[in-house]
Amino acid sequence: MRFKFSILALLLEGIIIVLFGIFVEYNTNDHPPTLYPYFQDVHVMIFVGFGFLMTFLKKYRFSSVGINMLIAAFGLQWGTLMQGFWHMEGGKIHVDIKSMINADFSTATALISFGAVLGKTSPVQMLILTILEITIFACNEHLVTGVFQATDVGASMTIHAFGAYFGLAVTLVLYRPGLKNKHENEESTYDSDIFAMIGTLFLWLFWPSFNSAIASGTIWQIKAIVNTYYSLAACTVVTFALSSLVDQRGKFSMVLIQNATLAGGVAVGTCADMSIHPFAAMCIGSIAGIISVLGFHFLTPFLASKLNIQDTCGVHNLHGLPGILGGIAGIIVTAIKEEIREDVHFTPGMQAAALGSTIGIALVGGALTGGILKLPFLGQASDQNCFDDSVYWEVPEEEKTHEIHSNNYDEHRRFEATM
Amino acid sequence: MRFKFSILALLLEGIIIVLFGIFVEYNTNDHPPTLYPYFQDVHVMIFVGFGFLMTFLKKYRFSSVGINMLIAAFGLQWGTLMQGFWHMEGGKIHVDIKSMINADFSTATALISFGAVLGKTSPVQMLILTILEITIFACNEHLVTGVFQATDVGASMTIHAFGAYFGLAVTLVLYRPGLKNKHENEESTYDSDIFAMIGTLFLWLFWPSFNSAIASGTIWQIKAIVNTYYSLAACTVVTFALSSLVDQRGKFSMVLIQNATLAGGVAVGTCADMSIHPFAAMCIGSIAGIISVLGFHFLTPFLASKLNIQDTCGVHNLHGLPGILGGIAGIIVTAIKEEIREDVHFTPGMQAAALGSTIGIALVGGALTGGILKLPFLGQASDQNCFDDSVYWEVPEEEKTHEIHSNNYDEHRRFEATM
Amino acid sequence: MRFKFSILALLLEGIIIVLFGIFVEYNTNDHPPTLYPYFQDVHVMIFVGFGFLMTFLKKYRFSSVGINMLIAAFGLQWGTLMQGFWHMEGGKIHVDIKSMINADFSTATALISFGAVLGKTSPVQMLILTILEITIFACNEHLVTGVFQATDVGASMTIHAFGAYFGLAVTLVLYRPGLKNKHENEESTYDSDIFAMIGTLFLWLFWPSFNSAIASGTIWQIKAIVNTYYSLAACTVVTFALSSLVDQRGKFSMVLIQNATLAGGVAVGTCADMSIHPFAAMCIGSIAGIISVLGFHFLTPFLASKLNIQDTCGVHNLHGLPGILGGIAGIIVTAIKEEIREDVHFTPGMQAAALGSTIGIALVGGALTGGILKLPFLGQASDQNCFDDSVYWEVPEEEKTHEIHSNNYDEHRRFEATM
Repeated sequence: MRFKFSILALLLEGIIIVLFGIFVEYNTNDHPPTLYPYFQDVHVMIFVGFGFLMTFLKKYRFSSVGINMLIAAFGLQWGTLMQGFWHMEGGKIHVDIKSMINADFSTATALISFGAVLGKTSPVQMLILTILEITIFACNEHLVTGVFQATDVGASMTIHAFGAYFGLAVTLVLYRPGLKNKHENEESTYDSDIFAMIGTLFLWLFWPSFNSAIASGTIWQIKAIVNTYYSLAACTVVTFALSSLVDQRGKFSMVLIQNATLAGGVAVGTCADMSIHPFAAMCIGSIAGIISVLGFHFLTPFLASKLNIQDTCGVHNLHGLPGILGGIAGIIVTAIKEEIREDVHFTPGMQAAALGSTIGIALVGGALTGGILKLPFLGQASDQNCFDDSVYWEVPEEEKTHEIHSNNYDEHRRFEATM
Repeated sequence: MRFKFSILALLLEGIIIVLFGIFVEYNTNDHPPTLYPYFQDVHVMIFVGFGFLMTFLKKYRFSSVGINMLIAAFGLQWGTLMQGFWHMEGGKIHVDIKSMINADFSTATALISFGAVLGKTSPVQMLILTILEITIFACNEHLVTGVFQATDVGASMTIHAFGAYFGLAVTLVLYRPGLKNKHENEESTYDSDIFAMIGTLFLWLFWPSFNSAIASGTIWQIKAIVNTYYSLAACTVVTFALSSLVDQRGKFSMVLIQNATLAGGVAVGTCADMSIHPFAAMCIGSIAGIISVLGFHFLTPFLASKLNIQDTCGVHNLHGLPGILGGIAGIIVTAIKEEIREDVHFTPGMQAAALGSTIGIALVGGALTGGILKLPFLGQASDQNCFDDSVYWEVPEEEKTHEIHSNNYDEHRRFEATM
Repeated sequence: MRFKFSILALLLEGIIIVLFGIFVEYNTNDHPPTLYPYFQDVHVMIFVGFGFLMTFLKKYRFSSVGINMLIAAFGLQWGTLMQGFWHMEGGKIHVDIKSMINADFSTATALISFGAVLGKTSPVQMLILTILEITIFACNEHLVTGVFQATDVGASMTIHAFGAYFGLAVTLVLYRPGLKNKHENEESTYDSDIFAMIGTLFLWLFWPSFNSAIASGTIWQIKAIVNTYYSLAACTVVTFALSSLVDQRGKFSMVLIQNATLAGGVAVGTCADMSIHPFAAMCIGSIAGIISVLGFHFLTPFLASKLNIQDTCGVHNLHGLPGILGGIAGIIVTAIKEEIREDVHFTPGMQAAALGSTIGIALVGGALTGGILKLPFLGQASDQNCFDDSVYWEVPEEEKTHEIHSNNYDEHRRFEATM
């Protein structure tokens, strides 16, 4: 991997810098000074939230946080260009706080897909996935908001459903029969589950900023904040209830608390800035929690065993199903005519077209991307080496010592047994 | 617990959603766009700050972070209603960023009390405690600010002292003689102490936001920020000094650094927005640090052994005593007539009434709540199972392996010994 | 250490409170309400960012986070006074959000130097270092911005290069031949490396706030934010590429990802608020990443073995070299006359003077400080006890048990071997 990754990364960075030199300018007008804190919240979600959420795997935490950082840092530059090309003025892309928020948003699609293939891909593959996915995302986003004129302020469809179904298509194409039986490294430890909660909480806390950052005015921002706040709160209570209910002994499951509690943020996204009343936001959040828990409990094992879709982080349950729920909520809300948004009028037909096109493009784009990632020279690890940082990272000696320790210990036990 | 917890949680969430449907509206006037960052800081304090601060126990970290999240997510909905009922207009509760800050605040009382009983209660008990405590808190808050017209901008009295004495009363009523001798799980590890510092730091850093969020204007906000900043800084230096001083070998103690460094934020709360001068804030912070360290070192063991008050996190030293100190500082400052707050006049008598009523109501409310929590069907764990996540959570296999490992090892040592 | 540290800390805190009583007032004019979020971001960087970045050492994490907190809490008070004395009006120092940002900034110098000597100094030594370094920093800062009228908005020179070279001079004077061979505790573990990434990410995420916080207006702030954002992103991609390239097996190194990814924030600091175009910011970031990786890989071992400069955290590569790069970039940018900053004119000569004086004063100041810290009664630990929390902290029993465990185990292995 030494030269393959290095040269590809340096080459891509060089190309991006040249493109920035040609196309990118500062936007020196129109600076709402109150937007910056929203950007910072989203920024934390992308790097700390997504990064730590994926640290639950016991031996894949360097990659979870590190490759997450690589994808996001690379993707936000690429995203600036891809989104900017659709909105050029005078042949220039103008960057400011709002475009930075959108650039961060664009990386979320690749990070969600990363969750689906987590532990099974190489850094080279992830660079290529990031380029392809963000490019396709920017086109679909333009289709949804520019052509269909649909609303999706919190990006339930264009980011969450898109990233999830793109990732599911990739992981289906990259299907590894050797991982049919659970890999010994594909599990968490007590400590890694706590690290993952750092990710969960920063996502959960800043989700109101995610859903309101690009709303078109203060009043709509406040509504998006309030709706997301109560949707997440209701979703969390329902997730705890369902988590206990689906377990035979009534115990809570960390994987559900880490993930399903966030589904309320995803699902309320499309209609977050509309006057849906807080209680409706709470209903959406509650349904999202139920769907997400049931998805983790019943659907993910089914997809893995019957449909060969190996979804490491269960992004289908956190981003896919709640994203569709968000799209459907948007259709319903726009269908009910009364004063939802006084200033603009969205139609249920266009909302449905947006949802359908998003999922279709994500599935096709993901399948094509998966096909490209299958090219043999991209350094995919063997099944044996999946979910293991030491393939791509220098790992502290102590770990090896620890293994030796265990081995010695095992030897000792054998020795004991033979006495 | 399977059905008991699930049904109770779903039932309560259903009731809350119905009440929101009837009573809650958006507040569409009066949106200071600069208030949102304060809300986010407080939001991080509640979920990350309180949650991680309690992860110091070696086997109770899922519950610390997880049940903290459950209490806060549930409590902020209940708090919206309980606080809202005292301020309805046209039969409606109007929610906005400010009401969300207050809703988050209300959950802090239950989280402080959670610290007092940490490791000894069931999730069902905590749901009931949250309902009762936030209801009583909202009444006392109305008494303090509405009836007595007292000032308590950083809520030294109404949140910190209230939450602490409420929790102490609960833990006294739930007294477990079986825990008189230190439980083997009631201790920290090297890693868990670092996790707890995540909580400490986010509380410490955002405390200026906590104390200034609901101040009545920019100038008062700035004063509250400045006073809290310097109070905490002085408190921290004094805490390090005292921590070394009270130890026989002069070593620092993590429990003191994690907790007593925060006492300066609690104690300066009541008079944070007054023109007390930064040096006075630093004096308050220094005294808070001294009181808190001495409380942890001398008082907590005394309370446990002599008064049967088992205060797991030492909330008495972080929230109780510094909260009273804050109340007393408020009395003194309002007594000194000179231009403390140019616009309004608070009287020492009313401040004293606020402090007294808060502690009295907290103690009575906590005792009653403790009595209710003692009802046998609420799923309290046995003494043996205290401070142990595995009672209420699925815990990763590795932990069990680890135990087996240790056991085998012990067996081996016995085997060695018998050779 | 019991009385030495306690009495010194209490004495210093007492002196500071008296000085605050005499000199410090609130600034009640001029409150840009949008500045507070920038302060909070910087605040998180100082306490969480620097603190956790240094937790990579396996047995020195209490000190990394804890003493970092002590230095910062103490230093921000001292920094308020030292910086304030240069800007008194009517014999008073006026504090507000901006002065708090500067006070936090001043502590960064001491924290960077702490990184150079990490594991080898006592808390008493660190208090003295903090006083001396912040005092000298404030003088140099006045020289750079007041006398030379140079620009350094993100403080590449006055904080980063200053803190690094000050620390390197201290660690040179405190040279310990006994640590020539790597100390057994001077390494990371799998968990400690993840903890360190918490520090890395919060530094990385909030660096745009660091570089823009004291910019002179919204437009300059936006430019500083945009430039820093893209500089860091480019630096991160280049760091990953170089990290793989310099490793024989092409693997990523955690120490590089933790540190060199941040060099882009340092290096773009001096000219962050200028109209250098985003692509130039990305070039600066890319070069910073290359320099930093090569510094860690080749220079740090050379400095340690040949020049007796033992730089525990490699601050030379994260703050020193990128700081100089930032200073040079500032010289070049001010030399190219075209509209870099329309309102003010900085000259390359003065920029060069600022860079030279900063490094010179840092080296001399650090050497003098190192000489003072060598005084024998300051409680320096023996070589044997370096990088070990248990010298200054109560460490949980389990750790000791673990040691016993290992010892027993070793005994057992010996026992096995003799059979």
